[in-house]
Amino acid sequence: MDNKTKRYVIGVDFGTDSARTVIVDAFSGEELATAVQYYPRWSEGRYCDPVKNQYRQHPVDYMEVLEATIREALGQCDSGVAGKVAGISMDTTGSTPALTDAEGIPLALTEGFEENPNAMFILWKDHTAVKEAEEINRLARSGGVNYIKYVGGVYSSEWVWAKVLHVIRQDASVRQAAASWIEHCDWMPALLCGRQRPDEVVRSRCAAGHKALWHREWNGLPPGSFFRKLDPALERIRNNLYSETFTSDIRVGYLSPEWADRLGLTTQVAVGTGAFDCHMGAVGGEATPNVLTRTIGTSTCDIMTAHYKDVGDQLIAGICGQVDGSVIPGYVGLEAGQSGFGDIYAWFKNVLAWPVENLLDNTTLISPETKAKLKEEILEQIIPGLTDAAARIPFEESAVVALDWMNGRRTPDANQEVKGAMIGLTLGSDAPRIFKALVEATAFGSKAIVERFGREGVRIKEIIGLGGIARKSSFVMQTMANVLNMPIKIAASEQTCAFGAAMFAAVAGGIHKRVEDAQKAMGKGFDMVYHPNRDKADKYALLYRKYEQLGAFVEEHSD
Amino acid sequence: MDNKTKRYVIGVDFGTDSARTVIVDAFSGEELATAVQYYPRWSEGRYCDPVKNQYRQHPVDYMEVLEATIREALGQCDSGVAGKVAGISMDTTGSTPALTDAEGIPLALTEGFEENPNAMFILWKDHTAVKEAEEINRLARSGGVNYIKYVGGVYSSEWVWAKVLHVIRQDASVRQAAASWIEHCDWMPALLCGRQRPDEVVRSRCAAGHKALWHREWNGLPPGSFFRKLDPALERIRNNLYSETFTSDIRVGYLSPEWADRLGLTTQVAVGTGAFDCHMGAVGGEATPNVLTRTIGTSTCDIMTAHYKDVGDQLIAGICGQVDGSVIPGYVGLEAGQSGFGDIYAWFKNVLAWPVENLLDNTTLISPETKAKLKEEILEQIIPGLTDAAARIPFEESAVVALDWMNGRRTPDANQEVKGAMIGLTLGSDAPRIFKALVEATAFGSKAIVERFGREGVRIKEIIGLGGIARKSSFVMQTMANVLNMPIKIAASEQTCAFGAAMFAAVAGGIHKRVEDAQKAMGKGFDMVYHPNRDKADKYALLYRKYEQLGAFVEEHSD
Repeated sequence: MDNKTKRYVIGVDFGTDSARTVIVDAFSGEELATAVQYYPRWSEGRYCDPVKNQYRQHPVDYMEVLEATIREALGQCDSGVAGKVAGISMDTTGSTPALTDAEGIPLALTEGFEENPNAMFILWKDHTAVKEAEEINRLARSGGVNYIKYVGGVYSSEWVWAKVLHVIRQDASVRQAAASWIEHCDWMPALLCGRQRPDEVVRSRCAAGHKALWHREWNGLPPGSFFRKLDPALERIRNNLYSETFTSDIRVGYLSPEWADRLGLTTQVAVGTGAFDCHMGAVGGEATPNVLTRTIGTSTCDIMTAHYKDVGDQLIAGICGQVDGSVIPGYVGLEAGQSGFGDIYAWFKNVLAWPVENLLDNTTLISPETKAKLKEEILEQIIPGLTDAAARIPFEESAVVALDWMNGRRTPDANQEVKGAMIGLTLGSDAPRIFKALVEATAFGSKAIVERFGREGVRIKEIIGLGGIARKSSFVMQTMANVLNMPIKIAASEQTCAFGAAMFAAVAGGIHKRVEDAQKAMGKGFDMVYHPNRDKADKYALLYRKYEQLGAFVEEHSD
Repeated sequence: MDNKTKRYVIGVDFGTDSARTVIVDAFSGEELATAVQYYPRWSEGRYCDPVKNQYRQHPVDYMEVLEATIREALGQCDSGVAGKVAGISMDTTGSTPALTDAEGIPLALTEGFEENPNAMFILWKDHTAVKEAEEINRLARSGGVNYIKYVGGVYSSEWVWAKVLHVIRQDASVRQAAASWIEHCDWMPALLCGRQRPDEVVRSRCAAGHKALWHREWNGLPPGSFFRKLDPALERIRNNLYSETFTSDIRVGYLSPEWADRLGLTTQVAVGTGAFDCHMGAVGGEATPNVLTRTIGTSTCDIMTAHYKDVGDQLIAGICGQVDGSVIPGYVGLEAGQSGFGDIYAWFKNVLAWPVENLLDNTTLISPETKAKLKEEILEQIIPGLTDAAARIPFEESAVVALDWMNGRRTPDANQEVKGAMIGLTLGSDAPRIFKALVEATAFGSKAIVERFGREGVRIKEIIGLGGIARKSSFVMQTMANVLNMPIKIAASEQTCAFGAAMFAAVAGGIHKRVEDAQKAMGKGFDMVYHPNRDKADKYALLYRKYEQLGAFVEEHSD
């Protein structure tokens, strides 16, 4: 580093509840600062209605938190750092779109719409558009070009077109005011560079390809005629969108004077094209081609890249999209995932918590304060306690076998109608044995994804685990390694999404030429590998057959 | 009652853990006294090994408890009652046999065998003879006469021949000493009348027909040649048994001077032929032909009687035996049952109790004494609390559906290999919803039995519920009425087994001519009827289809 001037990059990860900013040495990858802030309006539950599965986020939340985390992170650094920042890149959840006016301003930032949830960003997990998604699927399957074929053959209620269609039908004022829409991951760079007008926005290949039906085969988005069949207003909106999209190595522009000032940075800071969190996370987790990177939390997001020559335009059945350049430029990005993972453990915890939650209050033995503390103590220990107990149970051939579809199935072959199941229950099936079966079920769900890639000719040579569960639960990860019969490497970084964004910022800012160079220079490596136990792997292969049979039964008999 | 001398009868019910004696007015059915005593050695867990499913009871336990309960009950009556007792009849669990010497003395009462579990009574739920039962099944199916065809086509490890074969193979000293065997329900009257010699014992039709393969078609027990193929010693033992059997209206004899003295009664007391508990319970519950009497506790025992002309020698597929006269003389007694019922609720309670049982101890917020009390308080409330919460859940078509085979399946088509299951689980499936599904599953299991009787041409015109759950849980019983789409009457008596024994005693003692007369005179009637809700019955018919489909899947894929 002697003969080089130090340069720094900023990565920002907009998650579901909070945003995280990291400031990183662009050459060494050394992390100088990290700052997390929760979205203030979202934290109060505003604009949401969980009963209706309505989840909206106000654009002001994003702006405030961006400014606060960057200023907080800069505050942790020497005073010279701010002047040496070469680039900033951002990832967000998705599909998280907002309708905009003709200038590209999200409607919630325009007069009269400040408190209207339909004018805000519609968070990925908002499920208000189930009917509209079904309508899109029917139309796509009704003949002509199959516009959903590159997103696994099923359009989801979590994706932009369904959400936009739902909102403009629900809300006449929004319908009238809406000229276009923008994904959260596109809006942030557009905002920072002052190029928000629909014709100026640099659109993320990742968001466009995985969620908006953009594909080279039809030269961009599906034609207006397609959307007209759904709603004339949708055709009008579609015509204020885009046909070109960009990979995240591309610079959108530089910080506008206004935002350079707000963030305490200079107008020489390059701003990179945005992308979704797990996609940048896979880069931050040092994914290389044919390595499946699994971000494992309440659900999983599984990302893989493959050489275009290996995949070409071949359709990979049953996965959540295949998009050229959505992860690493020059490679096809493949997305998959399990709808429920940690959520399933949390569900069982809630089932077991019922006596403590509901019956403890009846006692007169202890004070209300002690009850509250005791409840909290016990609830916190349930999953760690079950994990310890489950880890001590030897392999049992006659064990409970569970199906991990309590939240539907995302991959392979998305189906929101299927549900969870358990077989092999006996009077001796105690709570730890059921928990063990649930952990195995989430591992079997992982195996179903890995096997699907293999069956479709996409080789997986390695697995990288990211995210809370990957780092914290050795029981879960060892079980997964045994079930997959593959080693699983755990990335050393605890914030791979923000870190991946920083790598992209280093490319957009001209420090590294290619994303792969940034990975090599800045990567932190791996701090753990779970190796499969051969004997258990053989045994799990047999149990996996039962899982498959149970799955076939449940699918055949689902409503 | 003016011109009649008062006469009394005694019924004794030997249950799994305790024996209950009732003293009843033989004309009016008025209950004068009741006394319960727990088996002392059994209560200490002696001679048992739950890990091996070995459950043995010492004959001295039975003798001590008989004497104690009768003396205690007599002590509750006017002094004149003892002299006016006309008869005593006893029911026991079964098949609960003991090996005996040539004089018919249970080996555990002979020198050198006092502490040998293999010389004691082998309780119904002892499952040490699984392999021997399979051997008997293989032999019976290997050609020639099918000696298991009247017991549903499957010989169980809970039955006498499997148990005797197991014990004589396990224990050379017992093998050498064993001359014959006796069922608990036959030994009690034999003991009290002083006619224990194998050739003198009056054998119960009920025990012989349902458990020992006795049938008119082969003039009694299967021939020696059948048993020789299993073990030469078994043939020798078989030849010291019986070919005649008796219904429970038949008097075995009168109390011997020794036992009249021990019990505080006279030698004019007639002793009736014994039978199994649920069979006498059905009589005590006032069962009439074509009425299914269900004793509902941890499991169920379902008893029905049918006119011989309706059944004849037709084999009723998949039930637990059809024996002419096993319940009411002159009618065919049909037995069925669910292997798990209340046990399944208790299992779920134990699953939910895990945090309280295992994590509460870790806290320092409360003292060990308070912890112990709090644990007890919460555990006691789990099933009542779940019941209240489940009763408030409206009918949901997308509900969890469970399969009640956590303890295997007894009827229809006995299969100990099948296990419990659940489908339809979502992240919203909370503890009360799962409990509701388990209650429905036990009701569906009931429906499977009722449907099987119907398919085999045996009409069920009414259902009577007996036992703890039938009397205590209106939620369970109403669900069952809805699922079966039939009214369920609840017998007023809380101790129908002992009461049924008292009715038989009144016949054996010459007070009433027929069992039906005793029922009419002494019966207490019913104190509740659960009527089906038509709307729910229709909805449950659809859910029952799912239960059947799940059952077919589990059976097909069981190990």
